[in-house]
Amino acid sequence: MERLRVSTSRRCELVEITAPLQEAVERSGVREGALVAQTLHTTSALTVNENADPDVRHDLLAKLERLAPREEPFYRHGEGNSDSHLKTSLFGPSVTVIVSGGRLLLGTWQGVFFCEFDGPRERSVAVQVLGAGG
Amino acid sequence: MERLRVSTSRRCELVEITAPLQEAVERSGVREGALVAQTLHTTSALTVNENADPDVRHDLLAKLERLAPREEPFYRHGEGNSDSHLKTSLFGPSVTVIVSGGRLLLGTWQGVFFCEFDGPRERSVAVQVLGAGG
Amino acid sequence: MERLRVSTSRRCELVEITAPLQEAVERSGVREGALVAQTLHTTSALTVNENADPDVRHDLLAKLERLAPREEPFYRHGEGNSDSHLKTSLFGPSVTVIVSGGRLLLGTWQGVFFCEFDGPRERSVAVQVLGAGG
Repeated sequence: MERLRVSTSRRCELVEITAPLQEAVERSGVREGALVAQTLHTTSALTVNENADPDVRHDLLAKLERLAPREEPFYRHGEGNSDSHLKTSLFGPSVTVIVSGGRLLLGTWQGVFFCEFDGPRERSVAVQVLGAGG
Repeated sequence: MERLRVSTSRRCELVEITAPLQEAVERSGVREGALVAQTLHTTSALTVNENADPDVRHDLLAKLERLAPREEPFYRHGEGNSDSHLKTSLFGPSVTVIVSGGRLLLGTWQGVFFCEFDGPRERSVAVQVLGAGG
Repeated sequence: MERLRVSTSRRCELVEITAPLQEAVERSGVREGALVAQTLHTTSALTVNENADPDVRHDLLAKLERLAPREEPFYRHGEGNSDSHLKTSLFGPSVTVIVSGGRLLLGTWQGVFFCEFDGPRERSVAVQVLGAGG
């Protein structure tokens, strides 16, 4: 198990972490299996999405904001970040990416993103590499 | 593989299952790897979110209910639980949590929750513990 | 690691792939573990949901369409498929399904679905089978 540090600079932000995850795969020595990356916080998530056009990231966050705005009259949680908790469960607290030939298996436009939903903060992502077969 | 029973008491409810999952990790003998917990039903999900303030759980369910209310004029499915099926795919049918040092690796405020979206019912969660390396 | 081809025929469509995934489990020889199925595209997802009544699939897609319609005045991405990218992260780019006794462990009504959100297209799904224990 390894821990990756991610620094975010806005309340909501998608930060690509494909390169450090690839390095973790190489250090693990696993050739065939899968990598699990898991946020250790309840107001941030992980996802896989397009890493080419930054407008995709803008649009993802802009739409999420309309679906789950920060304030709702029925929210009870005193910290004012209930929307961040919801976005976390919608995108998911972890991603599992297949490892093959000693590398992360990703499509041409796929990157792995840390999804900050209540920043800016210093965050931790745990990484584990599992082996295929058995 | 183990099966965990979960009894729910409302239509929509988040039930924490961190403790029995931790016991499954201990029984498995796995020190480094990941646990997969998977619902065996199509109207319930699994997630990781805050286990401290119960208002977070209230707010998650209250907002989900506004996003996907039970009735919609265009729903065709005769059982009247199309919203439950949608919430299941939004939160996801399983979670993968890293295991390190023989324990579930969770952040300070993280707990694993069974998400009932069409209760009350008796539910089954399957649990498998995978090993790291290869 | 194996690759599965999926042909889709509409812009948004849920295509069941349980049977070919089961065949991949059998070829792997793994008796206890988990299967990871991962889309290699950023406008399609994987999920587990009901495989009995096709009206459930209709309702899932109809509601998703209302939540995230194709056009929004604030979208910047030039390809006009920002909604597809969002739906991908909401449903998730991969699923992990427990394998037990040499078979996918699924509940009575559960099937694994490839979720096309920007078709019709020819798509690739990568499949890896991980072993339990360690």
